[in-house]
Amino acid sequence: MRIGVLGSGPVGQAISLRLAELGHEVMIGTRNPKKLNEWQSDAGAKVKIGSFAEAAAHGEMIFNATNGSGSLSALTMAGEDHINGKILVDISNPLDASKGMPPSLFVSNTDSLAEQIQRAFPKVKVVKTLNTMNNQVMVRPRDLADGDHHVFLSGDDAQAKTQVAEVLRSFGWINILDLGDITTARGVEMYMALWLRLWGSINDPIYNIKIVKL
Amino acid sequence: MRIGVLGSGPVGQAISLRLAELGHEVMIGTRNPKKLNEWQSDAGAKVKIGSFAEAAAHGEMIFNATNGSGSLSALTMAGEDHINGKILVDISNPLDASKGMPPSLFVSNTDSLAEQIQRAFPKVKVVKTLNTMNNQVMVRPRDLADGDHHVFLSGDDAQAKTQVAEVLRSFGWINILDLGDITTARGVEMYMALWLRLWGSINDPIYNIKIVKL
Repeated sequence: MRIGVLGSGPVGQAISLRLAELGHEVMIGTRNPKKLNEWQSDAGAKVKIGSFAEAAAHGEMIFNATNGSGSLSALTMAGEDHINGKILVDISNPLDASKGMPPSLFVSNTDSLAEQIQRAFPKVKVVKTLNTMNNQVMVRPRDLADGDHHVFLSGDDAQAKTQVAEVLRSFGWINILDLGDITTARGVEMYMALWLRLWGSINDPIYNIKIVKL
Repeated sequence: MRIGVLGSGPVGQAISLRLAELGHEVMIGTRNPKKLNEWQSDAGAKVKIGSFAEAAAHGEMIFNATNGSGSLSALTMAGEDHINGKILVDISNPLDASKGMPPSLFVSNTDSLAEQIQRAFPKVKVVKTLNTMNNQVMVRPRDLADGDHHVFLSGDDAQAKTQVAEVLRSFGWINILDLGDITTARGVEMYMALWLRLWGSINDPIYNIKIVKL
């Protein structure tokens, strides 16, 4: 599949490399293509580099791996015409480091970043997922406890969630829990408040949660 | 130990019964003692009933099992003189059902109910714990996956957390993770947003999360 990944930080790089490794044609979209020159000549050789608009136009499916604070502007730069009708896998978190560390959230409780994106781009099929763990765990879940932990899906389009779940399974995910419509993204985004403090307590970002049921 | 439990809903009842079963002298404090008459003549026979002030005066350790929206007023009714210097195990969640279901939180993000309580009663040793699971799992964690899941501690007083951890172990808890000072209660309280949606997805409140590490 042709996939556009918006955002060239550690999450965007990890997602792009993994997707390329799995045989997809990946273009990473960035505000500053030059900063990826070195990366592309080494690890990222199979990944094309472009603007947000070029990466969005390239992708049949789009990943939002931008910083939460820049997600809406990145998607605006990507252009409605290039994203409408497509699945947008939203990995971003609405982190706000301006009020001290660990970061708080700039939207939460009665709204979420995923909902803001869905409202701003109503013709995009937003599926929130993968925002609840470190990028290494995102793309290689089996490297942690043989994949015996969970990832979540939130979104209004059932078929889009099914397609995203297929991509997650190709990454190695076994336990994929559909939480419901896009408003359930409030749950996974607010979990960041616990995730950040677990990181502080565990002192290692390579962990995840497993849902333990009867 | 003499223990006062503030709040006579399902959480207060479950905590009181379990503590009495473990040999503690328990008094449950409530706004309306009459509503517990039937309960006391049956399951709650070993538990004394009193006002918030009487239960607080009785306890060497106090549990706050009131509704989050009523916690500060319940503690005010309990009386500073009856709680100062004591450990307050805060199980409450700042749930707000006025903005639709599932509930949102009336304090979150850059503050927490536990911090509000600690600020209002600076001489009380507030330890936040047990607010992240159903009351049956709280008091009998081994009944779920032999206890292979986690409970968290947040609080400013290390010795108080050690004493609360002992009580948790007597309930059957194996995995007790100290998150840090009382501000880390923001994490466990905001996790409610995910907990409520997991409940909706799993369709059974008897579950918990396990931290999966390398």
